[in-house]
Amino acid sequence: LWEHTKGIPVPQGVMASMLLARHLACSFQHSYRLLALMKQLNIIQNAEAVHFFCNYEESRGNYLVDVDGNRMLDLYSQISSVPIGYSHPALLKLIQQPQNASMFVNRPALGILPPENFVEKLRESLLSVAPKGMSQLITMACGSCSNENAFKTIFMWYRSKERGQRGFSQEELETCMINQAPGCPDYSILSFMGAFHGRTMGCLATTHSKAIHKIDIPSFDWPIAPFPRLKYPLEEFVKENQQEEARCLEEVEDLIVKYRKKKKTVAGIIVEPIQSEGGDNHASDDFFRKLRDIARKHGCAFLVDEVQTGGGCTGKFWAHEHWGLDDPADVMTFSKKMMTGGFFHKEEFRPNAPYRIFNTWLGDPSKNLLLAEVINIIKREDLLNNAAHAGKVLLTGLLDLQARYPQFISRVRGRGTFCSFDTPDDSIRNKLILIARNKGVVLGGCGDKSIRFRPTLVFRDHHAHLFLNIFSDILADFK
Amino acid sequence: LWEHTKGIPVPQGVMASMLLARHLACSFQHSYRLLALMKQLNIIQNAEAVHFFCNYEESRGNYLVDVDGNRMLDLYSQISSVPIGYSHPALLKLIQQPQNASMFVNRPALGILPPENFVEKLRESLLSVAPKGMSQLITMACGSCSNENAFKTIFMWYRSKERGQRGFSQEELETCMINQAPGCPDYSILSFMGAFHGRTMGCLATTHSKAIHKIDIPSFDWPIAPFPRLKYPLEEFVKENQQEEARCLEEVEDLIVKYRKKKKTVAGIIVEPIQSEGGDNHASDDFFRKLRDIARKHGCAFLVDEVQTGGGCTGKFWAHEHWGLDDPADVMTFSKKMMTGGFFHKEEFRPNAPYRIFNTWLGDPSKNLLLAEVINIIKREDLLNNAAHAGKVLLTGLLDLQARYPQFISRVRGRGTFCSFDTPDDSIRNKLILIARNKGVVLGGCGDKSIRFRPTLVFRDHHAHLFLNIFSDILADFK
Repeated sequence: LWEHTKGIPVPQGVMASMLLARHLACSFQHSYRLLALMKQLNIIQNAEAVHFFCNYEESRGNYLVDVDGNRMLDLYSQISSVPIGYSHPALLKLIQQPQNASMFVNRPALGILPPENFVEKLRESLLSVAPKGMSQLITMACGSCSNENAFKTIFMWYRSKERGQRGFSQEELETCMINQAPGCPDYSILSFMGAFHGRTMGCLATTHSKAIHKIDIPSFDWPIAPFPRLKYPLEEFVKENQQEEARCLEEVEDLIVKYRKKKKTVAGIIVEPIQSEGGDNHASDDFFRKLRDIARKHGCAFLVDEVQTGGGCTGKFWAHEHWGLDDPADVMTFSKKMMTGGFFHKEEFRPNAPYRIFNTWLGDPSKNLLLAEVINIIKREDLLNNAAHAGKVLLTGLLDLQARYPQFISRVRGRGTFCSFDTPDDSIRNKLILIARNKGVVLGGCGDKSIRFRPTLVFRDHHAHLFLNIFSDILADFK
Repeated sequence: LWEHTKGIPVPQGVMASMLLARHLACSFQHSYRLLALMKQLNIIQNAEAVHFFCNYEESRGNYLVDVDGNRMLDLYSQISSVPIGYSHPALLKLIQQPQNASMFVNRPALGILPPENFVEKLRESLLSVAPKGMSQLITMACGSCSNENAFKTIFMWYRSKERGQRGFSQEELETCMINQAPGCPDYSILSFMGAFHGRTMGCLATTHSKAIHKIDIPSFDWPIAPFPRLKYPLEEFVKENQQEEARCLEEVEDLIVKYRKKKKTVAGIIVEPIQSEGGDNHASDDFFRKLRDIARKHGCAFLVDEVQTGGGCTGKFWAHEHWGLDDPADVMTFSKKMMTGGFFHKEEFRPNAPYRIFNTWLGDPSKNLLLAEVINIIKREDLLNNAAHAGKVLLTGLLDLQARYPQFISRVRGRGTFCSFDTPDDSIRNKLILIARNKGVVLGGCGDKSIRFRPTLVFRDHHAHLFLNIFSDILADFK
């Protein structure tokens, strides 16, 4: 258990109270430096989404430091993409070892000229956490490319089922070159309202979380099913929620039938175990088990997008493990905390020829090197159980705040540290995020009016307490 | 001018003759080690495209070393993605400097929490080579994401022109969430037959180089124009080639009109300065100047894809500079040799709101750090002029080989070191590539039957001579 401040290791409890003292004592400093940096960036790109500029050299563990020296407890961790905290000593050491330098400088075209230790590093990293039944692995540079290539893998698999023993026909080979059927068949991927699967054009056709992501961009006519809108507290609305989930599943089946009739056959279904960008929308494990069955029944591939839920934050390495299935999915995508994008899939989804799933880099082995060490640390430090435990502390505290401030906090929900709650509206939500930042806590929003927690895996019970104390004060003062 | 073998610097001429002697003396060694690695990889993914496994630690400059210790002159440089050679000492030094370690370990979400030196590093790297008229810059993780986001930027710009002063309508905001017009308008991007712009679904709709890239993947009905098929030698076919280019340009205009009538308005035209994957298809500077005019005339954005041609290999930093235009393009994408993907665009293409062009990472500042040093070296060592000069040596030598072996080599063409020639068919092409590898030279194919040269920027005259000597011997023996 390590914590550093200005490079000097400090015992954990001391650190927490130092930080608390510091942030309650002095408020967030805005400097001309920050404004100057914003202005500089805004000259070359729209910088309106920038929160602030960071001093990553000084950032440690769960604490992010900005350019003015403000040290903040980071519960958003770069949109859920920092696995084991900032400036982890083991990773810093790894970078500076001379024998690793080549890996960062000589980026290979992995599909044609992989490095000698490519498979070895995959075994130490991704393959050691391969989801059930999925022995095949392709790495990609980001989450969008992972989903795009997962779609392509699914389309190829579906067409190959239809094609049977015969090879590509001359007509297929010719029509595909001009974007036409039968070479480019009119298949679709079924997605859910509220989903986020990325922003490239294939992914974007399955993303339905915010209009600003999609407006003005051409898309595909692909089926979109409703995602359950659960009522909280769950124990009070058991029957209503079951009905809601049944309604959504029925709609999924109806859409599969309808789109097959429209000759836009559903080759696959994509779903997040928890809809993240769309507002931390949960469904029951039973919902996902039934959805998986529907996919199997209709011969559609089942693609689970673990880009945000994967990597341990729910208390299991992959969130779909909570469903307890032996055959949870056909394809599973990842990125963010995994440091590299990519996807696992079953052997029957393996492309039948080289260069079908391919690009220049196919990921980056320097990320696999870092990930091998990260996974080593997750296992050694039992960080999955830590996420489950610290998550329970956080969730319990949020439920307590909800009981005390029902006018501000509702629908508290979560799995592991992957927690969230709703606020009355986006204006209150954004105010709360801003006040929290000024008190030394970085939070993120999602959906219309939710606040989501996406801490690193080294977020401990005492960090949860620290946050809860600060936020309790904020709510007490909030008008 | 640096060359290393086994870590010991060796004067240039000596190195070349040592290598020559070594490779002409002993042929390529295949080992059980290589076969074992192939087998291991093939268990987890289709590994049929793998040429061999590499020892990148031992690779230096233009020389790639495989796991069996074979040292090869690399004229393909990881599908044209290695800017200044393997294991460049300046880059190795940069990695190992303690103050840089944080950049490799703490990957930020650049759109919301950029590092303090973000703009500074962009100024030292990408902004220092910004193409004419394009002041705006967004970084992305790869070439496909660059083109996808360039398309989106173009669609937003086009729609915003149509929309005029008014904001998004309620109908647009609602319909975009379900992939329908008017929120998701039926715009298109015009591309050329033979083009390659990436493999994600938006990009793939503009890629028409090989059927295996496209077959079984749904696509968009977007217009595809013919790309000139020039006859060589150019000086003998001046009139025919002018007519061919005029025919293609006429078709472009016809398609713009036709697709507007079909209500699939052409928002932009995408083109490579040299069609690379599609077979190194060149067109005259005049063709591109006229194409740029057509785009302007019809109100379409002009997008130049410099993913493969950019970074100096044609003797100018961007290949479009050869056209000599003051307003060469509206948007220009890059990746590969630039180490990071991304795109430049004009100010009028700037999105009017945050989060419209966005994703979690938006590139990787550790790549910008490396690129700043690479660009520094390109300038300091005058590597653009080197590419022009060494390219001339290579092209002259290829023309000589064409004169001596017209039965094997035709249509020799090139700009800088970005050279290529045609062989009689793909079987002979592939044989020549294999024999060359066994003689210590890595070459790449493109199109149906072409061999393309994509050396690094530290490819010098003597490397060209070395290759030409080896290849001359190969052709003399070839049956």
